Amino acid sequence: MERIKATYYIETPFDIEKSAKVLAGEQSTGTFVKIPGETAELKERFAARVEQIRYLESVSQPAMPGTHADFPSYHRGMVEVSWSVENFAYNLPALISTLQGNLYELKQFTGLKLMDIEMPASYAAHFKGPRFGIEGSRKLTGVNENRPVMGTIIKPSIGMTPEQTARLVQTLVNAGIDFIKDDELMTSPSNSPFKARVDAVMRVIDEYADKTGKKVMYAFNISDGIDEMLRNYEYVCAKGGNCAMISLNSVGLSGTKKICDQGELVIHGHRNGWGMMNRHPLLGIDFSAYQKLWRLVGVDQIHVNGIQNKFWESDDSVVSSIKACLKPMLGGYTVLPVVSSGQWGGQAPETYRRTKTTDLLYMAGGGIMAHPDGPEGGVVALKQAWEAAVNGMSVEHAAKKYAAFGKSVKKFGSEV
Amino acid sequence: MERIKATYYIETPFDIEKSAKVLAGEQSTGTFVKIPGETAELKERFAARVEQIRYLESVSQPAMPGTHADFPSYHRGMVEVSWSVENFAYNLPALISTLQGNLYELKQFTGLKLMDIEMPASYAAHFKGPRFGIEGSRKLTGVNENRPVMGTIIKPSIGMTPEQTARLVQTLVNAGIDFIKDDELMTSPSNSPFKARVDAVMRVIDEYADKTGKKVMYAFNISDGIDEMLRNYEYVCAKGGNCAMISLNSVGLSGTKKICDQGELVIHGHRNGWGMMNRHPLLGIDFSAYQKLWRLVGVDQIHVNGIQNKFWESDDSVVSSIKACLKPMLGGYTVLPVVSSGQWGGQAPETYRRTKTTDLLYMAGGGIMAHPDGPEGGVVALKQAWEAAVNGMSVEHAAKKYAAFGKSVKKFGSEV
Repeated sequence: MERIKATYYIETPFDIEKSAKVLAGEQSTGTFVKIPGETAELKERFAARVEQIRYLESVSQPAMPGTHADFPSYHRGMVEVSWSVENFAYNLPALISTLQGNLYELKQFTGLKLMDIEMPASYAAHFKGPRFGIEGSRKLTGVNENRPVMGTIIKPSIGMTPEQTARLVQTLVNAGIDFIKDDELMTSPSNSPFKARVDAVMRVIDEYADKTGKKVMYAFNISDGIDEMLRNYEYVCAKGGNCAMISLNSVGLSGTKKICDQGELVIHGHRNGWGMMNRHPLLGIDFSAYQKLWRLVGVDQIHVNGIQNKFWESDDSVVSSIKACLKPMLGGYTVLPVVSSGQWGGQAPETYRRTKTTDLLYMAGGGIMAHPDGPEGGVVALKQAWEAAVNGMSVEHAAKKYAAFGKSVKKFGSEV
Repeated sequence: MERIKATYYIETPFDIEKSAKVLAGEQSTGTFVKIPGETAELKERFAARVEQIRYLESVSQPAMPGTHADFPSYHRGMVEVSWSVENFAYNLPALISTLQGNLYELKQFTGLKLMDIEMPASYAAHFKGPRFGIEGSRKLTGVNENRPVMGTIIKPSIGMTPEQTARLVQTLVNAGIDFIKDDELMTSPSNSPFKARVDAVMRVIDEYADKTGKKVMYAFNISDGIDEMLRNYEYVCAKGGNCAMISLNSVGLSGTKKICDQGELVIHGHRNGWGMMNRHPLLGIDFSAYQKLWRLVGVDQIHVNGIQNKFWESDDSVVSSIKACLKPMLGGYTVLPVVSSGQWGGQAPETYRRTKTTDLLYMAGGGIMAHPDGPEGGVVALKQAWEAAVNGMSVEHAAKKYAAFGKSVKKFGSEV
């Protein structure tokens, strides 16, 4: 029987091997006393197994305050645990409850983070994964050159009418943008009802497409209840849109999968709320594991933050997130990493130097809208920044060579 | 316009008031530069407001490692922020993205936890909430006395056939149990397909009900994709079951609401994965806020861990979770707190002493099954423990007065 493997970064004041076994027990057959009817055969078939332990350092203070304050030292390690696929078959919530369930509550641990998941081969037959991914996103936006898909976010996040939004979209499509998205805070408030916004925005996008042959991808934020999301989804399809955005953590796994399964729109996955699951180095889930779950669900594009972002995350962490997305899973399941947060082009050279990829959706908000030459200058500057990046130029060098990008550097170079 | 209020426990090396304003800005109108078109009127109407700040202690080390390691001190405070309901209307995922979205990622904070939410009155008209709650759960299980509904979990968690499960259910209903649930790891594995399990279990429950008039409530774990959950749900209804269990965090908000909206079954909400969101004192979400969201969604029963549990959580935290559930929300929305984890009756006196309630679903697994007189003795002992608790007896006193409970104390008293 196939097995699924998960790697955990753990910390415990007790013996690492024993603690790992408690984890495996709790997440398969366990309770606190021996139960009549629990045979050895049954345990052998269904119990989780500790496959590997890599011992790391010991420390004098626990990673998580509140419990076990009185031990001399806390031992860290990477622990690989496996489960028979038979335990949950192809039920994703059951898989999550197994890999990320009660184990975080175990007394044995003063730190526990799910670092990676190794999916068994048969998953490829059961989960369709992203219908569009990198190739589909490029095809629909018509970006075939060696540069990222350039995107932006409608700001202010909230408060604009559909007409105001459409005017902004007009400005942005005229400026040559490839992709635009609603803000994750924007769904269907009274000032901008969903359908009215779709109508107003698609009119602008279609008109521009008729004129120029370039159809800008717009990610309408459909996040809501299941029925409402399906209605929103159908409305976007009916109006000729090709993308919908979902706040993954707010909607949840089952709801997001239901939407992805419709298969007609590119699904832009926003990870807002992610900090809660990842910000502590020894609690929650690492992005390597997280993005695999959403690829399985069928998300086509997923947020990875950006180099020199306005959030807390380090560049190293962002780079490893991008690399995780670009690593094939089960031989495919491509997902387009969405780089955003405080981006204006100045981060392009470093992003390319460290990831060596242009398979990105590169999002700039203020970096486009507030460019000294207006949004058009902003989009041109972004493209220049990436041309420079791919050619190995530094920001300083590119600022001299490209006028529009030079103005970005002048305006934003000190703000970030 | 009505406002929704959220209280955050924050830590920052910067000025608390300024940091709170950054939070409010990020979660409403914000981007990193001023945007053309962002008028003062628009800001006034849609911007989040910092309503109140309660300054707490300063500390010398940040709560969250990794950033800002070089500041002399870190200031803590409780901050109340409000948003106009207009921003997200009655869209729950949009509300979550606002209250629990990107704010966890802000550089300004070295700790941030959502502590409580104050729902506006109009939510009562838009969210039906729990259809059964405390009263409905009592009515369906026929527990009208002044004691908790007594429940247990099928163990081993996984591996048994439907017939083995049904035999165990037979033993448990004969023993006088009120409520039984699937383990959260058990959904529809090859060894126990969902429908076959429902068939086998309901046969036993119905037969017992026909004979005695007592219909035991069984929470079938329907957690899965949306369509699969709806099918499972309908199957439980068709077979005369009255309860379904959902792993709330694994299924997610939108999927769970879709199921609750069906309105025919009691929804038993399992919070596995919760430790990830709450285990750190300065990261994530407090149970007070968490349980309100699920009551809004319509969950009837929600897990709160238990006194002297086998997990990391303190008794104080468990007690405050129980109290949070029992506090009316918008004048109602009752939810039955599910006490579980290492419970065997010995914790009843302390649970009652600290909460003064019997409106609980009190779950014991091994505490029932491994009782020296078998499950029947286990259930009798639980009821005795609660009779003693309500009468203010100590464990020692009750152990002398009640023979079955006395045996529990002898067997489990030293294990927990």
